[in-house]
Amino acid sequence: MTQNVNEPFSEAEVRGLYRAIHERRDVRSQFRPDPIPAAVLARLLQAAHHAPSVGFMQPWDFLVIDSVSIRKDVLAIFDSENEKAANNYTGEQGANYRSLKLQGILESPLNICITCNRSRGGTHVLGRNSIVETDLFSTCLAVQNLWLAARAEGIGVGWVSILNQAQLSQTLRLPPEVYPLAYLCIGYVSEFLDQPELQAKGWRSRLPLEALVHGSTWGERLQDQSLHKALLEIEKTV
Amino acid sequence: MTQNVNEPFSEAEVRGLYRAIHERRDVRSQFRPDPIPAAVLARLLQAAHHAPSVGFMQPWDFLVIDSVSIRKDVLAIFDSENEKAANNYTGEQGANYRSLKLQGILESPLNICITCNRSRGGTHVLGRNSIVETDLFSTCLAVQNLWLAARAEGIGVGWVSILNQAQLSQTLRLPPEVYPLAYLCIGYVSEFLDQPELQAKGWRSRLPLEALVHGSTWGERLQDQSLHKALLEIEKTV
Repeated sequence: MTQNVNEPFSEAEVRGLYRAIHERRDVRSQFRPDPIPAAVLARLLQAAHHAPSVGFMQPWDFLVIDSVSIRKDVLAIFDSENEKAANNYTGEQGANYRSLKLQGILESPLNICITCNRSRGGTHVLGRNSIVETDLFSTCLAVQNLWLAARAEGIGVGWVSILNQAQLSQTLRLPPEVYPLAYLCIGYVSEFLDQPELQAKGWRSRLPLEALVHGSTWGERLQDQSLHKALLEIEKTV
Repeated sequence: MTQNVNEPFSEAEVRGLYRAIHERRDVRSQFRPDPIPAAVLARLLQAAHHAPSVGFMQPWDFLVIDSVSIRKDVLAIFDSENEKAANNYTGEQGANYRSLKLQGILESPLNICITCNRSRGGTHVLGRNSIVETDLFSTCLAVQNLWLAARAEGIGVGWVSILNQAQLSQTLRLPPEVYPLAYLCIGYVSEFLDQPELQAKGWRSRLPLEALVHGSTWGERLQDQSLHKALLEIEKTV
């Protein structure tokens, strides 16, 4: 992208990174049907592919799901799981839950499933001897790269997590060693909301950052009082 | 960050996002001891806190580990796990493995552990009924936000994955419901390498992107030939 990777980022470049982080949303309702041009989609997939991975394992694959028939099958899995989930809530919370739109499987022009091949790289993957789940964690990092790149391109992404993974694997014909880590709906949007939808709808609020930051061990106060002050200060800005 | 979240990103803003993605490295050897200013560290932690999370659960906490004593204890855990890992390799590969530097726990000015509180948000977290690991996945997205924000700020991050999580939890005095998802070394660097270190040292190469992209089901060819072409084309650019 640039000739010299050690060139400091310009002010606008830094701003672009932080904009993507702060203005990214989990989109369910604002998808427009316009197709994503191939060159743009290639940039998003390449961004995902350049995520960090344990031992440079690169355990991910990408299913670009345009088939409406496959998407209808996935929606049926969602509907069944979501009905079970709704039954966890009663009264006002139950009504609130049922009023939320939690997927855009058919409204978005494209779905992408990012998978994790748990056998890639053989028996001993460097750095994966102690924590075997690091392959799944690596694949998550690819998801976030794609999500942020999409945001910079003006494209929304929504992660559908209310799915039965065994049924999804069958629908997508995944081999047994391949885990469907993230099922994403993706497309241009009518607008990006100015705050997370679950917060806007009163489901749950953002936690105060400074309450989540500890010192060297759990519950220990920060040694550095200037960091504590900076955390309180920065909360006012977003 | 901007007044209107729906303002399209400028060319420089888009470039900043892609630079962070493509020029990010897993740093082990290039740390400088200079401290990270509080205001900068606050921006990185805020970036992590603005990651997506299942049901807006925000399951993460951040341990800002400046204690050298705690870091020495963590290094001892690493050394023990890494010795076990090295024994998985023999001959030339074993020598190559032992020559790799896989952590910068003491050379970096700061370590950060990003944890996942698996009980946060109560028994029923929206979107987490089908796949219970989505809290861990959410925490990974926070890791990547921090990693990319650090890169834009000229700060390197290295994820130490060769650790025993039970021993690490004990050292960091984590409550039983809190999982130490990512142990990170963080600091300014003498340089960012122009390619991943494991690739430069011949351990493993980047996989061709177009071989990882499928159609609507596993192994199915892309319907969209223009995407196939765009994937081949984009591989030449990075």
